[in-house]
Amino acid sequence: MDLFQILRDGRPRTRSELAAITGLARSTVAARIEALMDLQLIGPIEDAVSTGGRPSSQFAISGSHRIVAGVDIGASHVRVALATLTGSILGELKKTITVDRGPEELLGWVTSALQQLLDESDYSNSDLLAIGVGLPGPVEYRTGRPINPPIMPGWDKFDVPGWIGKSFDVPVLVDNDVNIMALGERHVAWPGVDQLIFVKVATGIGAGVISGGVLQRGAQGTAGDIGHINVSRGAEVPCQCGNRGCLEALASGPAIARVLETEGVEGIESQTSAEVVGLVKQGNLQAIQAVRQAGRDIGEVLTTCVSLMNPQVIVIGGSIAQAGEHIIAGAREVVYARSMPLATESLHIVQSRTGADAAIVGAALLALDHALSFSNVERMILENAPRVPSTVRG
Amino acid sequence: MDLFQILRDGRPRTRSELAAITGLARSTVAARIEALMDLQLIGPIEDAVSTGGRPSSQFAISGSHRIVAGVDIGASHVRVALATLTGSILGELKKTITVDRGPEELLGWVTSALQQLLDESDYSNSDLLAIGVGLPGPVEYRTGRPINPPIMPGWDKFDVPGWIGKSFDVPVLVDNDVNIMALGERHVAWPGVDQLIFVKVATGIGAGVISGGVLQRGAQGTAGDIGHINVSRGAEVPCQCGNRGCLEALASGPAIARVLETEGVEGIESQTSAEVVGLVKQGNLQAIQAVRQAGRDIGEVLTTCVSLMNPQVIVIGGSIAQAGEHIIAGAREVVYARSMPLATESLHIVQSRTGADAAIVGAALLALDHALSFSNVERMILENAPRVPSTVRG
Repeated sequence: MDLFQILRDGRPRTRSELAAITGLARSTVAARIEALMDLQLIGPIEDAVSTGGRPSSQFAISGSHRIVAGVDIGASHVRVALATLTGSILGELKKTITVDRGPEELLGWVTSALQQLLDESDYSNSDLLAIGVGLPGPVEYRTGRPINPPIMPGWDKFDVPGWIGKSFDVPVLVDNDVNIMALGERHVAWPGVDQLIFVKVATGIGAGVISGGVLQRGAQGTAGDIGHINVSRGAEVPCQCGNRGCLEALASGPAIARVLETEGVEGIESQTSAEVVGLVKQGNLQAIQAVRQAGRDIGEVLTTCVSLMNPQVIVIGGSIAQAGEHIIAGAREVVYARSMPLATESLHIVQSRTGADAAIVGAALLALDHALSFSNVERMILENAPRVPSTVRG
Repeated sequence: MDLFQILRDGRPRTRSELAAITGLARSTVAARIEALMDLQLIGPIEDAVSTGGRPSSQFAISGSHRIVAGVDIGASHVRVALATLTGSILGELKKTITVDRGPEELLGWVTSALQQLLDESDYSNSDLLAIGVGLPGPVEYRTGRPINPPIMPGWDKFDVPGWIGKSFDVPVLVDNDVNIMALGERHVAWPGVDQLIFVKVATGIGAGVISGGVLQRGAQGTAGDIGHINVSRGAEVPCQCGNRGCLEALASGPAIARVLETEGVEGIESQTSAEVVGLVKQGNLQAIQAVRQAGRDIGEVLTTCVSLMNPQVIVIGGSIAQAGEHIIAGAREVVYARSMPLATESLHIVQSRTGADAAIVGAALLALDHALSFSNVERMILENAPRVPSTVRG
C-alpha cells in the first residue's frame, strides 16, 4: 500500500515504520514525506519515544492545513460544510429551500455560503482540495450531471461541476444522496466495516451499496436503485414508474400514508412520511402495523440483497426510519426467515445512527475519496515539484 | 498507481513512460525496475525506437520466468494447469474423479499432477509463485476451508492450503467454483468489463459477482449465493435447504428434469442436467419450454441483481447453459420487462463463451491476483533485498 494511503487512517507513524510497511527504501520514504509535507497533506507530530539513539519524528495526515467541502442538497434543504482531511466537520451553513427552485438559485446559495464559510475560517480558497455534492435524484457520477431527476425540475443534465467550478477551481464530485449517506453512515457509525448497505426510506426508496470497502455505483451509476423491485404483496398497486407492485409503491412514506388515509385514519392530510411518523409516535396501532408491513416488504427485497452481496450491516435510514424499531422489526422478520444461516450469522439490521448528518459527512467524504486518492496525490506531487526535466529522454 | 501494477496489463513501457505515469523520480523508477527484474517479475523488451539520443529500453511483465498454478476441482473432475503471469495456460493435466472420494485422494492427485507438470516444463518449483484452487462448494476464503459443502463428504473445514502447502511452499488461495468461473470468464471473454455477474446453472445455482473490477465475496464469503432466493412461481416446491420455492428447487438441472419426468417425458432416468440438455438438443418441446421457464425464474432473481448492482454483463454458464439460447431468452424476457430503463440500457445477458475453461483460467487468476498484488510484490522485494539494515533506527 502507498505510504500516504497508509497515513489516511490518522495514526502517526515514524519513517522507519513507513519503510517497514511499504517496503520502500529509507531515502524514498524520506523524499515522499518531504513531498507530502510540501503539499501540507501530512505534518510532523511530537517526537516519539525513541528506542535508542536520536528521537524519531512521527508523521500523520494533516488536520489543519488543507480542507474539503461537502454539500448536501435535499428535497427541501441545503447544507454546506467544511471538513478536515480525516472527515471532521469544521463548520456549516444551512438553508431551508426546495430543490425545485432550480440549479442556479440553489447552487448560487451554495457557492456564496461556501465562500462565507471560507472567509470566516482560518483557511483560504487555495486550501480547498475538492467539493463533494449530494443530490436528491439520479446522477451520472462520471459527469456529475443529474439524469431525469423526478423531483428536480430544471436540473436534468445540468452541469453541476461546471457551474460550481466557475467559483471554485477544484474538482467537484456529485452523487445521489443515498450513496453519500452510505459513505457518511459508515464513517461515523461503522468505521472499518467493508460490507454495508444503507437503505433510505422516505418519499422514495433507494440504497447505497458499499462492498469490499468501496461504494459500488455499477455500470451506469444506478446500483442501489431498489425502489422499483417487484414485491409479492400488492401486485396490483400502480407505481409512478409505470409498473405495478414496486417496493416504493408499497413501502415509501407516501405509500404508507395513502393506505392509512384509505383506512380512515385521522391525521393524514398531505400523505407525507412526517405524518406517518407522527401517528406512530402517538401509538396509533394502524400506523404501527402499516410501518411494520412496509418493513416486511423492504425485508423481502433485502433478502435477495443479503444472498447476493452478503453484507455485514444493513442500515435503514430516511424519514420513515424515524418511526423507530417497527420498520426494522418487519425487515428483520423476513430477512432472518428467508436467508441462509451463514449469510445472517453476523448480520446487523439497524436504524441509522447519524440521522440527518449522514449526508453532509458523506458529501465531504466523496470529496476526500477523490482528493486523497493515490492517483490524485501523485498528480499533485508531480505538479508541485516536477522531477523529470522535459529535456531528459530515453 | 504502482509501477508494477501498471505493467500487469502486459504492455511494454520505457522508464520515462513509467516515470510520467507514476510521478516517481527517474532514480526511483530505475531502482524499482531493478528490484522487479531481480525477482524475474518483469523483463526488458527489444529496444524501442528512440526519440533522439540513446535507445530507450522497454520493460514488460515477464511471460517466461515465474508461473502460477490453477486447480479446478469439480463434482466429477480435477484439472491442474500452469499459467504465465498474464494468465495464459501453459499446460494442464486432467482426471475424471468424483469429489466425494475425499480431500486426501483428490489433493494427492493434484500435488503429484502439479509436480509432473513442473518436471515436464522449463520451470522449477522455485518459479511457482502461488496456487489457486476452485472447489464445488462454499469456501471460507480467508482460511481456504470448505464450509458444510453439500456434495463433498470429508471436506468440511479441511485445511486445503495447509495440505497442499506440505508439498509446495507457496501461498494457496481457495474459492468456490462460481467465483473462479466469474474471474475466468471476464479475463477471456470480457476483458476490461468491471461489472459482471456470472451465473452457474447446473446441479445447483450460484453466482460470482464482479463489481468495481473486483470479485465481491461479502462478509462471510457467501456473496453470490443466489440459489435459495425465493421465486414467485411454485411457492410449494420444497428445497433441500429446508425452505420452499427456492430458485434452485425450480430452475436447476435436476429440478427441470424432475418436472419433465412428472410430465412423462421419455429420456429422463437419472434427473441430470445432461439429460435435459440432450432433450433440448433433440428439439423436445416440453424440455425447451421447461428450460425457458427456468430462464424466467432466474430472470426474476436477476432483476433484483440488476437493480442492486447495475452490472454491464450477466453471463449464464454451467451445464444447463449448454441447452443454448432458451434459458437466456427466458431470463432476458423477465429482466427487460421489470428493470428500469437506465439499468438495462447497455446490459448484456449472454451465454458463457469459455465453457468448461472458465474455471481453470479463473483458478490461475485467483493465484495471480494474490501473487502480483501490490502488498505481495512489496513483500517479495523486501525479502529479496532488504534495504533497511536492522541497526538503523529513528
